Amino acid sequence: MLRSHHCGALDIKNVNEKVVLSGWVAKRRDFGSLTFIDLRDRYGITQLSFNEEYSKELLIQSRELGREFVIQIEGTVAERSNKNLKIKTGEIEIIVEKLTILNSSLTPPFTIDDETDGGDDIRMQYRYLDLRREPVRNNLILRHQVAKHVRQYLDCLDFIEVETPVLIKSTPEGARDFVVPSRMNQGQFYALPQSPQTFKQLLMVSGFDKYYQIVKCFRDEDLRADRQPEFTQIDCELSFVEQEDILNIFEGMVQHLFKEVKGIDIGTLPRMTFEDAMKWYGNDKPDIRFEMKFNYITELTRGKNFPVFDAAETVLAISAKGCATYTRKQLDELTEWVKRPQIGAKGLVYVMCNEDGSYKSSVDKFYTQEDLKAWANTSQAEAGDLLLLLCGDTKKVQKQMSELRLEMGERIGYRDKNNYKALWVIDFPLLEQDEETGKWHAMHHPFTSPKPSDIPLLDTNPGAIKANAYDLVINGVEIGGGSIRIHNKELQAKMFEVLGFSDDEARYQFGFLMNAFEYGAPPHGGIALGFDRLCSMFGGADSIRDFIAFPKNNQGRDMMIDAPSTIDDKQLTELGVRVS
Amino acid sequence: MLRSHHCGALDIKNVNEKVVLSGWVAKRRDFGSLTFIDLRDRYGITQLSFNEEYSKELLIQSRELGREFVIQIEGTVAERSNKNLKIKTGEIEIIVEKLTILNSSLTPPFTIDDETDGGDDIRMQYRYLDLRREPVRNNLILRHQVAKHVRQYLDCLDFIEVETPVLIKSTPEGARDFVVPSRMNQGQFYALPQSPQTFKQLLMVSGFDKYYQIVKCFRDEDLRADRQPEFTQIDCELSFVEQEDILNIFEGMVQHLFKEVKGIDIGTLPRMTFEDAMKWYGNDKPDIRFEMKFNYITELTRGKNFPVFDAAETVLAISAKGCATYTRKQLDELTEWVKRPQIGAKGLVYVMCNEDGSYKSSVDKFYTQEDLKAWANTSQAEAGDLLLLLCGDTKKVQKQMSELRLEMGERIGYRDKNNYKALWVIDFPLLEQDEETGKWHAMHHPFTSPKPSDIPLLDTNPGAIKANAYDLVINGVEIGGGSIRIHNKELQAKMFEVLGFSDDEARYQFGFLMNAFEYGAPPHGGIALGFDRLCSMFGGADSIRDFIAFPKNNQGRDMMIDAPSTIDDKQLTELGVRVS
Repeated sequence: MLRSHHCGALDIKNVNEKVVLSGWVAKRRDFGSLTFIDLRDRYGITQLSFNEEYSKELLIQSRELGREFVIQIEGTVAERSNKNLKIKTGEIEIIVEKLTILNSSLTPPFTIDDETDGGDDIRMQYRYLDLRREPVRNNLILRHQVAKHVRQYLDCLDFIEVETPVLIKSTPEGARDFVVPSRMNQGQFYALPQSPQTFKQLLMVSGFDKYYQIVKCFRDEDLRADRQPEFTQIDCELSFVEQEDILNIFEGMVQHLFKEVKGIDIGTLPRMTFEDAMKWYGNDKPDIRFEMKFNYITELTRGKNFPVFDAAETVLAISAKGCATYTRKQLDELTEWVKRPQIGAKGLVYVMCNEDGSYKSSVDKFYTQEDLKAWANTSQAEAGDLLLLLCGDTKKVQKQMSELRLEMGERIGYRDKNNYKALWVIDFPLLEQDEETGKWHAMHHPFTSPKPSDIPLLDTNPGAIKANAYDLVINGVEIGGGSIRIHNKELQAKMFEVLGFSDDEARYQFGFLMNAFEYGAPPHGGIALGFDRLCSMFGGADSIRDFIAFPKNNQGRDMMIDAPSTIDDKQLTELGVRVS
Repeated sequence: MLRSHHCGALDIKNVNEKVVLSGWVAKRRDFGSLTFIDLRDRYGITQLSFNEEYSKELLIQSRELGREFVIQIEGTVAERSNKNLKIKTGEIEIIVEKLTILNSSLTPPFTIDDETDGGDDIRMQYRYLDLRREPVRNNLILRHQVAKHVRQYLDCLDFIEVETPVLIKSTPEGARDFVVPSRMNQGQFYALPQSPQTFKQLLMVSGFDKYYQIVKCFRDEDLRADRQPEFTQIDCELSFVEQEDILNIFEGMVQHLFKEVKGIDIGTLPRMTFEDAMKWYGNDKPDIRFEMKFNYITELTRGKNFPVFDAAETVLAISAKGCATYTRKQLDELTEWVKRPQIGAKGLVYVMCNEDGSYKSSVDKFYTQEDLKAWANTSQAEAGDLLLLLCGDTKKVQKQMSELRLEMGERIGYRDKNNYKALWVIDFPLLEQDEETGKWHAMHHPFTSPKPSDIPLLDTNPGAIKANAYDLVINGVEIGGGSIRIHNKELQAKMFEVLGFSDDEARYQFGFLMNAFEYGAPPHGGIALGFDRLCSMFGGADSIRDFIAFPKNNQGRDMMIDAPSTIDDKQLTELGVRVS
């Protein structure tokens, strides 16, 4: 070892010990006859002291050390005169007796500090330097710990981690696959898995009973700000279980993780039906850190000659606590906000519930104080609160109001990243209809089981079928989802039929699964959690990018290694493909 | 849950309990008024009893149950009259009171038994049924446990598991890459990693200090019997370490795994230089479960007018314990064996060391009893042993003799799969020369550090340079290998130069690593272990295939899902590639 201790190890108990440390020069401070250097490694920072009295030569050498030089020193631990009680090593320093430069460094293109001066692009290009920064390193250590506790929990419950293949078969269903040309089978391609869905179901057919895997998955999608072409999933499947069993086991996992990773007792997870989530929050992943539920006040607004409300299918109100003091400017700005194309509202109606019991609204022309009071009462708005109203087609206005609710929650400060609220959203519809084509799509995936009592509706009213499907939602983010699967080949065939697969298509794409179902498939179900997202949530961050060691940018490009890149013609020829 | 207990849980202590079990019908035995069914799940087998006295209706139903039907039963635990003390549940049976068929099954194409009647191809095609067989399932459970203990050991030593990307950049160096066309960057390709080598080195530059990952890697090679296009690696890297530290840490891991997985104390691992391994075993992965070292008897054979030996650069002998009784037929067969093109020897000379102290050889014409005795003494051959001699160019004959030694070890029974001997092979040459082109290739990889004292030889005698590289060998199989890396950019540039990379090539392929080395790369090194191979070794098997849930065949084809396969023209067009 090129060290006797790491840079976070030594404290006052080690005074007078001879030690060897190695690490990076984080900071150098020169004072006449004295130089201090902060030596950094993964574990911490230790102060080195070079003193003219001890060795003039060493002092001179120390002044040649630039930022991020890698050095090894030998020396003696001494008590510091000027202590820093914030860090473990803050009471001591090392009187350096020998200095070896292990490697030099150019000046980094940005400062290696908690708050860096580097922009996104430069940090991505020099990711290996960005990863030296403590917050980024801590994110990846957190990620390691989350994985460890996930495994710990599932191992204790007799789950077996099984690796499923990465080179699989392309299925046109769902998102786009990344494909891999096969050299040995020219003209044919492997695909990278969007999830190990069919393999984990096959493992259940094989009797594996309880499977998990922390596994890379791939989607060739146009990347939004916070998507990655490769991402990691905690993938689980169990046999001989019902929905209730899965919810209980993974509620236990969520509780375990919060306890172990954050020291938080997250408590019992409430359950909310998809229908209720849409009705009261306009969202299948409601943020329940705060209430501010929707109030349906359509009837109360009718017949007062306000044509906008009279014409609307639904009028919704939310009550924003303590916001009655909003200025005209703030209200105008909020109106502009809901009218942005991303939200799409035509306008915003407000009612200020003044401290004196009176009301001031943007529709005073049409409504009396009594009217406004009725709205406020229905919406549990009290003196000092601001009532915000949107109207329109029910589904659209629910969606718009959901955005406004989240925005107001943000502004009021309800969405504290260190406050965690998790819930299950259950009873999802099995199918959703494409508005343009009228085609039915699986809301979850084509292997999700309808609730048994709803199976007859497959022929008569597919849209009304509820599925044994569930999502885990934390702080308004969908962290995971799953379902009880179909294990009966006739029902699976029926499902493919409803989804518009021909027999041939179904057989070509999922023949192996249909075949497997001929040989004693057990009842089974499972769940998959977004591991990157889970980690970023535990880290209190919005973006998953800094919880991935080497992420790609929005063009799917790794800026550091400059991939993808062109390849040799020879390579292409061997593969039997051409760039067109 | 569709069960109160699993099929391996119940024993005599549970008698009279009401239970619910679910599982597969493994066997049915009908006896007039009585039917027994072996119900199987992952955990074991429990006997079900259907009795006419209890319910004629249930008895009739039970006789409709075919092999591999999935059923759920309710019943009462009873003591068996005819006990099977070999299994935990063998003292009890369940008197069935209710039977539900959860799924039917076609008759499987082969028997789901420890010894199956299914051939390789059919088992691969119906892998989900093959995985139901206990030996295959146990292999995957073993794999899970090995992974668990690897993580446990490394976690305890403060290693951090970091996921490195799967979509990376193609490098023409080394084996062929699998490539992935990029839709968003048309004409460009990602490559799948052959190993995370450069990323783990970058993590060291980032200060991660101790990294590991159990990770999928990919090689588009023509597949030999026991290679897979995707395989799993235990990948590790450490900073501020020397070779000795790495050997100690991973020797500890090997000891930990043998203890935890096999209950075996493997002891201290001996170390052997590459030079010694080649000299005494003709092999850089010597099987040291048995001695049978090479004896160099060239000088003893000279000048006796046997032209074959006189002309040979080297004459080697090994002594096969107790084989002096080999028949003429056995010796002829062994001679044919060494003359096969895979071995390539011109012939085989033998000396039988008879019990009476005399010698009988195939070269009695040329050599006296005294000559033969001298050979035998030098080779520690005793009465009853068989001396086997090969001759030729040193390197070639070492290789041939290595094969013969292993073959004789096998025949004598020295290569017991339940006897484990591990060692380190160290001091590998840094470079090897292509005989045809004269070009130098990195024996390990281009990032391996020469021994510091050998660095000057880079300009004068590259072939003589020893590397800080090491292999972990168990029972004659290379389980892993690693090296101390180059951390100095000048030395790395020099290395690329010796390997015949132009500056441009080196920069295009490894520019990001060379850049990273400009910013304070610490001294570092690591190791990678073949996880599939390690598991198959712990499982006492030769092939890795049954330690992989869904392996591919020798054509790189997944027989079960029938991948690779053709893909839509539309998909190809989107990707901007054509099949040529």
